[in-house]
Amino acid sequence: MNRSELVKQIQQKKNYLCVGLDTDITKLPTHLQFSPNAVFEFNKAIIDVTRDVCVSYKINTAFYEAMGVKGWQALEATVNYIPSTHFKIADAKRGDIGNTSAQYAKTFFEVYGFDAVTVAPYMGEDSVRPFLEYDDKCTIVLGLTSNKGSNDFQQLLVHSQTKDQSNVYLFERVMDKMALWGTVDNLMFVVGATRADKLRDIRQRFPNHFFLVPGVGSQGGSLEEVSKVALIEDGGILVNVSRAIIYAEEGENFAEGARVAALQYAEEMNQLM
Amino acid sequence: MNRSELVKQIQQKKNYLCVGLDTDITKLPTHLQFSPNAVFEFNKAIIDVTRDVCVSYKINTAFYEAMGVKGWQALEATVNYIPSTHFKIADAKRGDIGNTSAQYAKTFFEVYGFDAVTVAPYMGEDSVRPFLEYDDKCTIVLGLTSNKGSNDFQQLLVHSQTKDQSNVYLFERVMDKMALWGTVDNLMFVVGATRADKLRDIRQRFPNHFFLVPGVGSQGGSLEEVSKVALIEDGGILVNVSRAIIYAEEGENFAEGARVAALQYAEEMNQLM
Repeated sequence: MNRSELVKQIQQKKNYLCVGLDTDITKLPTHLQFSPNAVFEFNKAIIDVTRDVCVSYKINTAFYEAMGVKGWQALEATVNYIPSTHFKIADAKRGDIGNTSAQYAKTFFEVYGFDAVTVAPYMGEDSVRPFLEYDDKCTIVLGLTSNKGSNDFQQLLVHSQTKDQSNVYLFERVMDKMALWGTVDNLMFVVGATRADKLRDIRQRFPNHFFLVPGVGSQGGSLEEVSKVALIEDGGILVNVSRAIIYAEEGENFAEGARVAALQYAEEMNQLM
Repeated sequence: MNRSELVKQIQQKKNYLCVGLDTDITKLPTHLQFSPNAVFEFNKAIIDVTRDVCVSYKINTAFYEAMGVKGWQALEATVNYIPSTHFKIADAKRGDIGNTSAQYAKTFFEVYGFDAVTVAPYMGEDSVRPFLEYDDKCTIVLGLTSNKGSNDFQQLLVHSQTKDQSNVYLFERVMDKMALWGTVDNLMFVVGATRADKLRDIRQRFPNHFFLVPGVGSQGGSLEEVSKVALIEDGGILVNVSRAIIYAEEGENFAEGARVAALQYAEEMNQLM
């Protein structure tokens, strides 16, 4: 799925909700925990009740990797179960030297068939190029993240490289460079919802790129603030909510609880669009 | 295995060689390619002929991930096969918000039993802490990497934060901060061999930390130059060689070829120590 198909979904469903499947086996309802395929069964139930609501699913690979080989089986089953109408994101934050990044790109785009993967920028151009070479896929590079640690390096001021440039934050330099290497079709950015104060400037700097916005829900970001400053004509943002949807209700009614929570987010987005 | 045990191995074997198992299924000898466990069989043969030579093995997870679930099975079999006398590194370059990094730390330290994992620093303190909390393990943070893209962001000059600080490169700021959060026992840095010009300054700045040094061999870094500026009394470096050892010879004699190549590197290190 490419940008224009994603935009079509957003316009049809009138929301830009991405449901995050950060499925932690220790947090599953008791009646599922002893099933041999507990994680996939949980995800399947969540997808069944949210597929008519949301436009995208994001799988946080860490939670699957922590289960060893069985976790990758659950990830594969889950991504195969997500309907082709939905934008499938691998939140993997990979990035390495060129020949290794090429293996990661192959992993998520070819082996598992994701539409997008998140990529860490520290290693520079040749670590990102192998992802961008998949023209019909999306590379989602970390810009300004939602966590406290984003103050440590991302918001350092870096010296201008030419006289006519002003000093910028590291995350701005990262995003400027990435925007030269990718296009508004094959490149998106991660910009945390907890940075709504900065999001207005970021949108002005990048008026046409899609942003993947985590941090609404358990991390405390405001959907309204984010939407007001970052929405553009074709949407231009995907707001991810993980824990506040998938763990909205404990016990046997977890799926119904997830649906109610997803519908609330979707409805709020509908109002904001 | 912790630092002092690694140092013991280095002193016994008189080298600081890490063999990189970047095992690419498409590059295996023909007679192995159709085996159902080709990657593990190849790795097993490499480990059998190099275990008395080297002190460490590094598994580049990307090459295993690109094979899907089967790749993780090969990774698990390989890490279980590496003798407990050897320092086992997962070259995974992970890093995410705290609760997610905790899952990655669990994956590599607990589920697979690695001694060390490589971590990307862009997301700051709370993305690295969950790894550092494993006191008896090593977190190897990217400092200055061996690839061309390390010029893009790692070598940007960042403004000093207080009046008595001078401006430093981003990679120096990253390493300074990390050194505050970790210790010389639970924290190492990746410093590429292709940066021997910078390595002398980095060693002066961090006189006691271990460096994992990739980039010797196929990437063109000089073992001699690296060793002259970075060796310290207890070793203090692990030089990784992947392709130039494991693919030293094609065909049925690949293992013998790998042994010869490993012995050459080890002997050169012995001379340089």
